[in-house]
Amino acid sequence: MRNILIIGAGRSAASLIRYLLDKSEKENLFITIGDISIQSAQKFTEGHNNARGILLDVFNEVQRKEAVLNSDLVISMLPARYHIEVAKDCLEYGKHMVTASYVSKEMQALNHKAEAKGLVFMNEIGLDPGVDHMSAMQVIDRIRAKGGKMLLFESFCGGLIAPESDNNLWNYKFTWNPRNVVLAGQGGAAEFIQEGRYKYIPYHRLFRRTEFINIEGYGKFEVLANRNSLQYQSVYCLDNILTLYRGTIRRVGFSKAWNMFVQLGMTDDTYIIPDSKNLTYREFVNLFLAYSPTDTVELKLRYALKIDQDDLMWEKLVELDIFNKEKTIGIENATPAMALQKILEEKWTLAPEDKDMIVMYHKFGYELDGKKHQIDSHMALIGEDQTHTAMAKTVGLPVAIAAVKILNGEINTPGVQRPIAKEVYEPILKELEENGVIFREEEVRYLGYNPDNLS
Amino acid sequence: MRNILIIGAGRSAASLIRYLLDKSEKENLFITIGDISIQSAQKFTEGHNNARGILLDVFNEVQRKEAVLNSDLVISMLPARYHIEVAKDCLEYGKHMVTASYVSKEMQALNHKAEAKGLVFMNEIGLDPGVDHMSAMQVIDRIRAKGGKMLLFESFCGGLIAPESDNNLWNYKFTWNPRNVVLAGQGGAAEFIQEGRYKYIPYHRLFRRTEFINIEGYGKFEVLANRNSLQYQSVYCLDNILTLYRGTIRRVGFSKAWNMFVQLGMTDDTYIIPDSKNLTYREFVNLFLAYSPTDTVELKLRYALKIDQDDLMWEKLVELDIFNKEKTIGIENATPAMALQKILEEKWTLAPEDKDMIVMYHKFGYELDGKKHQIDSHMALIGEDQTHTAMAKTVGLPVAIAAVKILNGEINTPGVQRPIAKEVYEPILKELEENGVIFREEEVRYLGYNPDNLS
Repeated sequence: MRNILIIGAGRSAASLIRYLLDKSEKENLFITIGDISIQSAQKFTEGHNNARGILLDVFNEVQRKEAVLNSDLVISMLPARYHIEVAKDCLEYGKHMVTASYVSKEMQALNHKAEAKGLVFMNEIGLDPGVDHMSAMQVIDRIRAKGGKMLLFESFCGGLIAPESDNNLWNYKFTWNPRNVVLAGQGGAAEFIQEGRYKYIPYHRLFRRTEFINIEGYGKFEVLANRNSLQYQSVYCLDNILTLYRGTIRRVGFSKAWNMFVQLGMTDDTYIIPDSKNLTYREFVNLFLAYSPTDTVELKLRYALKIDQDDLMWEKLVELDIFNKEKTIGIENATPAMALQKILEEKWTLAPEDKDMIVMYHKFGYELDGKKHQIDSHMALIGEDQTHTAMAKTVGLPVAIAAVKILNGEINTPGVQRPIAKEVYEPILKELEENGVIFREEEVRYLGYNPDNLS
Repeated sequence: MRNILIIGAGRSAASLIRYLLDKSEKENLFITIGDISIQSAQKFTEGHNNARGILLDVFNEVQRKEAVLNSDLVISMLPARYHIEVAKDCLEYGKHMVTASYVSKEMQALNHKAEAKGLVFMNEIGLDPGVDHMSAMQVIDRIRAKGGKMLLFESFCGGLIAPESDNNLWNYKFTWNPRNVVLAGQGGAAEFIQEGRYKYIPYHRLFRRTEFINIEGYGKFEVLANRNSLQYQSVYCLDNILTLYRGTIRRVGFSKAWNMFVQLGMTDDTYIIPDSKNLTYREFVNLFLAYSPTDTVELKLRYALKIDQDDLMWEKLVELDIFNKEKTIGIENATPAMALQKILEEKWTLAPEDKDMIVMYHKFGYELDGKKHQIDSHMALIGEDQTHTAMAKTVGLPVAIAAVKILNGEINTPGVQRPIAKEVYEPILKELEENGVIFREEEVRYLGYNPDNLS
C-alpha cells in the first residue's frame, strides 16, 4: 500500500478524492484525509476501505509531522500560505508533495534541498494555475518543435455559472470563493505586453477595458486583464514575445456592471465601517454618495454613476435588493468589500440544482518559415452537481493524476516543479481528456494587434 | 545665553531662523543650525554673531547626542520619521523639543516620561497641522465659553501660487514638496461626516467630488476631501458633531484636470516602469492607453477620457508638453508617479520672481440658546520672495514663537503636546498676527447640509 495524505478537505477536494478512491484498488493506494473538521474529513472517505479521515490541525506540529511521516506523498489543499510548514516536513521525512498553488518564494527556496533528496514538489497543478500551464505548453512546445517562433500568447480562464442555471441579470453566481471575486484585480495595476509595448491598467479602469471572445457552442464572453501576465514570461520562456496577455472570463456585461461597485468604492477592503452590523443595505450604499436631506439614494446613485433611465445596469442593482431599508449587513467590523460580499451572496449563491462551468481560452500566434499563424484552443466544462463541480474537477483531477504518477515514478524530475515539462503535461492532459476536460483547437488567421504591420 | 538647536536647514527653515536671529539679542538666544550639508547650515546664519552652522548627520549618534546635550531646546525640521531618535536624546538630556509634524505613535509613547521630567515636546505647530489647530481652537473655545454646542467644523488649507505669479492653465505651481502633491489622496478612501452620516470617497473619485469656497479678495477656490478628517474628532473633542470635513484648497478646475492623471493611472507609485530612463513623455502617456498601430496617442487619450474637442482640459495637457516625442523621463527605475512628477516639474517650478500663497478657511457651525449660528474664518498670505515664502513663514514662525515661549516658561505644560490649549494658541496667534498671518472672521447664516431640518 502507498499512503497518500490529503491535507484540507475543502470544496476542491471532492473530485480529487473520488479519483484516488477509484484508483485505490488497482494502484494500491491508501488515502488519509486530514482536516481541522474530522466530520469533513470522514465525509469525503465515502466509507471506502482504502480511506480514513483524521483530525489534522496544520498548526499542531506533532499532529502534522506524524501524519506526514506516515505517508508516501502529501497533497496540500490548504490556502497557499499554509503549504510551507508541510513542505518542510516533507523535506525532513523524504516525502513527495503536490499543491495547486503558485510557487511562493519560500517554496522556491526549498528547490535545491528537494532535488538533493530526489523529491518531487509539484505545484501550480490545479486549474489556473495548472490546466492552463499544461494545455498552453503542449501547444507552445509543438510550435517550437516545428521551428516556429512565438509572437503572441493570450490566455483566459473563468469560473462561471452553467448556461442551464444562468438565471440572473448579472449572468453570474459564486461558484468559488466569493471573497476572491469581490477583491479581484486589487493590489496594483494590471500589466501586459501588446505588440512589444508595455501596457498598464489601474484597478479603477480594469472593468472598462474588457475584450470579447467567442467560444463555439457557448456564445460571447468578455475578458478582463489579470494583474500578473508578465510573470508567465520567464516560466514559458517567452522573453521576446510581442503580445502577452492573461485575463479572466466573464459573461458579456458583467464587468461594466461590476464597475459600478468599483467606482462607488464598495470593493475597498482597507477600512472598517462604523457599526457595520446594524447598517442597512440602503445605508451601506449611501456611505459612498454625497449627503442630501431630500434626494433619494436611488437618484444620487444614478447621478453619481450617470446611469440613464433606460440602462439595464440599473435593473442589475435593483435585482440585488441593494436599496433595501430593512435588511442589515449583520457583520461586525465589516469592510466595504465584506458588506458587498454579504449582499451579493444573498443573490449569487448556487441553488441546489445549479451547475457551474469552467471555460478556458488560449491564443497562440507564431511565425514559421516567414509566415504568421495562429492556433486558438479552448475548453469548456459543465459541472455534474454541487459536489463534483467543474471547478472541483479541473482543480482536483490534475492534482490527483499527478500524485499517482509521482508515486509510480512516471513523473520523477525532483525539485520544486510546475507542470510545464512534456513528461508531466502529456500523460496528465491525456487522462484529463478521458475525464471530459477536452481542449479543442483550430487554426485561425493571425492578426495580432497590428495586422498591416504599421510601425 | 539660551541655546536653540535647529536640526534640518530645509526650505521651511528660513523664516524660522530669521525670527530667532531677530530676537536673539533681546532674548539672549544662541542658534545652532545643524544639517547634513554644512553649507546649507551656515548659509542660514546670515553671518549673525548669535548663530553658527554645524555639520549634523542625524544618524550619527555621537554627533547628534553632543549637539542635543549642548542645547536648551531642540527644533527638529527633519521629515517626521526622523524625529524619534532626537526626541529620545531630548528625554535623556532633559531638553525641550518642538516639531511641525503629526504626533507619531512612537512620539506619543514618550508622553509620560516627558511629563515626569517636566519637558515640553510641542508637535504639530507648523501650518497644517499647526496654524489650523490654533486658529480653530481659538474660535471653538470661544463658542464653548458662551455655552454653544458645536454642530459643524470644516477646515481647508492650500499652498498655492500667488495671483500675481499665476500664469499657467492649471493655476498651480509647486510651492512645496512636489512628490507629496503627486501622491496626495492615495493610501485609502477619504472619510468624513456630514449631518451625522459617515461618507467615504475612494481615491479615483476624490478629484471629482470637490466643493467651492469663496475667499474675499481672492475669488473662488475648490476644496477636495483630505483622508483624515475623523482623526481631528477626538483631538478637538468634537465627538458628537454632525459635520466634520477637512480638505485641500486648489484653484477652480485643478482637481478635474488632475483627475485625468488619476484616471489614466499616472499617479501610481507601486510599480517600476521598464527602462523608464529612456522613455519619452509620449511613450509614458502611451503606457496607459490601449495599443493601436494607427491611432495617435492624442486621439486615444481623448477617447479614453472622453475629452471633447472644445474642452480646456485638453489645453492643460498640451501645456505640459506631455505628448513630446523627444524629451525623456531620464530617471532610472521610475514609478509612474515619479515620471509624472518629472514632467510637471518642468512646467510648475517657481520662476525666481514667483511668489506663493497660503490660504486657510474654517467654518464653525454651532447652536446657542436654541438658535443655529455660523462663523467663517479665513487667512490668506502671500510670500515675500522665494526664501521667505508664505509656506516658510506659516510653517516656521509658529515653531519659532513656540520655542522662545517654551524657553521663557510661558508655555510650560509638560508632555507630548499639540497647540490646542489657550495658553499656547493665544500668545502665538497674537504674534503671528503681528507678522501678517491674520485671520478674518465673519458671522454667516448657518445652513449645514440640511437647512430645512428634513429627516
